[in-house]
Amino acid sequence: MNKPFENSTICEDSQLLLQKAARDQIETVWERHQAQQPQCGFCEMGLSCRNCVMGPCRVDPFGEGPQKGVCGADADIIVARNLGRMIAAGAASHSDHGRDLVDVLGEVGSGNGSGYQIRDPEKLKRVAAEYGVATDGKDDFQIAAGLADAMKEDYGCKQKSITLISRAPAKRQELWNNLGVTPRGIDRETSEMMHRTHMGVDNDWQSLLLHGVRNALSDGWGGSMIATEVSDILFGTPTPRATRFNVGVLAKDQVNIIVHGHNPVVSEMVLHAAQSEEMLQLAESKGAKGINLAGVCCTGNELLMRHGVAMAGNHLSTELVLSTGAVEMMLVDYQCIMPSLATVASCYHTKMISTSDKARFPGMEHQEFHPENAAETAMTVVRQAVENFANRGEAFIPVDSVDALGVF
Amino acid sequence: MNKPFENSTICEDSQLLLQKAARDQIETVWERHQAQQPQCGFCEMGLSCRNCVMGPCRVDPFGEGPQKGVCGADADIIVARNLGRMIAAGAASHSDHGRDLVDVLGEVGSGNGSGYQIRDPEKLKRVAAEYGVATDGKDDFQIAAGLADAMKEDYGCKQKSITLISRAPAKRQELWNNLGVTPRGIDRETSEMMHRTHMGVDNDWQSLLLHGVRNALSDGWGGSMIATEVSDILFGTPTPRATRFNVGVLAKDQVNIIVHGHNPVVSEMVLHAAQSEEMLQLAESKGAKGINLAGVCCTGNELLMRHGVAMAGNHLSTELVLSTGAVEMMLVDYQCIMPSLATVASCYHTKMISTSDKARFPGMEHQEFHPENAAETAMTVVRQAVENFANRGEAFIPVDSVDALGVF
Repeated sequence: MNKPFENSTICEDSQLLLQKAARDQIETVWERHQAQQPQCGFCEMGLSCRNCVMGPCRVDPFGEGPQKGVCGADADIIVARNLGRMIAAGAASHSDHGRDLVDVLGEVGSGNGSGYQIRDPEKLKRVAAEYGVATDGKDDFQIAAGLADAMKEDYGCKQKSITLISRAPAKRQELWNNLGVTPRGIDRETSEMMHRTHMGVDNDWQSLLLHGVRNALSDGWGGSMIATEVSDILFGTPTPRATRFNVGVLAKDQVNIIVHGHNPVVSEMVLHAAQSEEMLQLAESKGAKGINLAGVCCTGNELLMRHGVAMAGNHLSTELVLSTGAVEMMLVDYQCIMPSLATVASCYHTKMISTSDKARFPGMEHQEFHPENAAETAMTVVRQAVENFANRGEAFIPVDSVDALGVF
Repeated sequence: MNKPFENSTICEDSQLLLQKAARDQIETVWERHQAQQPQCGFCEMGLSCRNCVMGPCRVDPFGEGPQKGVCGADADIIVARNLGRMIAAGAASHSDHGRDLVDVLGEVGSGNGSGYQIRDPEKLKRVAAEYGVATDGKDDFQIAAGLADAMKEDYGCKQKSITLISRAPAKRQELWNNLGVTPRGIDRETSEMMHRTHMGVDNDWQSLLLHGVRNALSDGWGGSMIATEVSDILFGTPTPRATRFNVGVLAKDQVNIIVHGHNPVVSEMVLHAAQSEEMLQLAESKGAKGINLAGVCCTGNELLMRHGVAMAGNHLSTELVLSTGAVEMMLVDYQCIMPSLATVASCYHTKMISTSDKARFPGMEHQEFHPENAAETAMTVVRQAVENFANRGEAFIPVDSVDALGVF
């Protein structure tokens, strides 16, 4: 006989928590996915279009119904446009995260980045040299300000190509040039993709897909690469770390705080606050044996690779981590954060805190993090988490599920 | 008894041409719209979502099926995200058109804009002053280069707000500031909208709609306003004009050239070529009594308001204009150009020319216009149009349909 929920996930901790969630009458992503079956075949194949108000249109893949939208676009055009907009959304998301980091770098450079530092000054100088930013006779802050300014140019439309594309092999750069897909500006390629995919603009699937390549490169060699480099400069370049993972990393006798999202600007400050003597003493006074910070999803990874912080779960198990009833607080910034999380949390004592000005969620308390208030705000929310320890009810942590990865 | 196609359109010329199109077995936007009925109610109401690959999802408006997508987004969030992406596409399109004009202004300023001129130097100076661009002791070209550079900053992310927002009344600016919807950069707001509407980012319909306002303002007081100002500077500020309209403006005994799209960068040069002595003589030698340039859609309007050029039709009648069989050439740039046009044209002698590097169409010949080759390319294509006059077969122009607007 199969174990319960064995077909839902291969993770034993998730199987156990799916049972608990069912007992607690908590709806999870698994049930919502089931309820959506069968998913619309037109939308799934990219054969439907609502890019203009003459639509919505759909093309019949079996050749019996209409083969063209109202404007005359056929299946190839419609699919290419839909894929193009998916690329635009992905490129915009990664790159907008990169922009936030560049903003912090600029604030640190101008002396307004309270609490943030230049943790890898060598990398700062190396990247500044790539951007042609003068470093001689300048201190780290001046270099940071200059680099942030230069990186912002990559987001604009004054350049013929983004800067870090020069890292690609010469032969590859030549190929991209010949195809006309060398990205000029990060936001520019996203905007042009949204333009091209509008009604009556680009109606050639090859031309659309080539711009998709350009838009993707504007992120891969632009926004995403900038995000990585600036994260390393601000928070330190990662090294191999030993860590533990799965929901069993939650501690029965400690204050459990989970960070979720993408932006180390929030999670690094929360880690700092959670390790402060003041908060550790407060935790002790509340009967907790410490403060246990763990991550889920990508922010978890940021903390893991820089500080060895444990990973409690992945994107799909974020609701299940809450359903343990053992989490005092989950802090979120943006990307991959299910809007259902606060509903799950409301069945327990867990406090849900949203932190970004560009991502709010139903039922969450909003405590906005900005460079100038980040250190202070992190202390405020960690204090709330610690004070919430007393409210924990019956909790279930599948402790046997914890796995460990040694130094590798 | 109703007249044929009376329910399809109130325009008599279109009614007559719909009859001809039916006789010629030409499929038009009317038939394609009919074939799409009934349109998908989920897509039409914005209740479906395919922003991530856990979907596609749909919310049942009658409350019987699922009320949430797989991620947990409810109807309010899904509708707000879909509207947000429509705003992003519209803002990106208008603004990308504005960017093309700024590029031409910059080329003219640097002496590479062969054929283009500064037609309204007074306006150039006025707008330059608004942008804080120095004008004292500088010639028009230097000012144009400086203004183009300053306008490109509006597309970037270094500013706290776009420049022309200062034209709004102070009270209105204060309201926008208080709501946090003052646009910072044109492309930036579009990119942020694509980011916010991705899975797990902004999940608050009010927050999403407020960013929709910011994104729309980034176009309305940014890209679109820049497009208008730069068009006036390059092509002259429009004045009230007498003109004629409807498909009867096509001439039975002249070479008919139609321009279609949005970008005066193409249409102005084509007008210039069509009025050249060389082309008029060529037309005469081919038995035509002249060259009749007419517009459809927005490019038609650009020529109408600056030169009184007649309007042969609107967006919906573009196929019907071709179905007269009296058009030697239609030139298109981008926006609102149905990909069906070349199919219609292929039933007659009409040549279809696409001109923009960012918009290609099935079955069209591609002759790319750039500032440095625009004058020459315009002569080339007009020559092809004139030479095509001899290939015209039986044509039907509903001449009685022509209407006129006097000086107003």
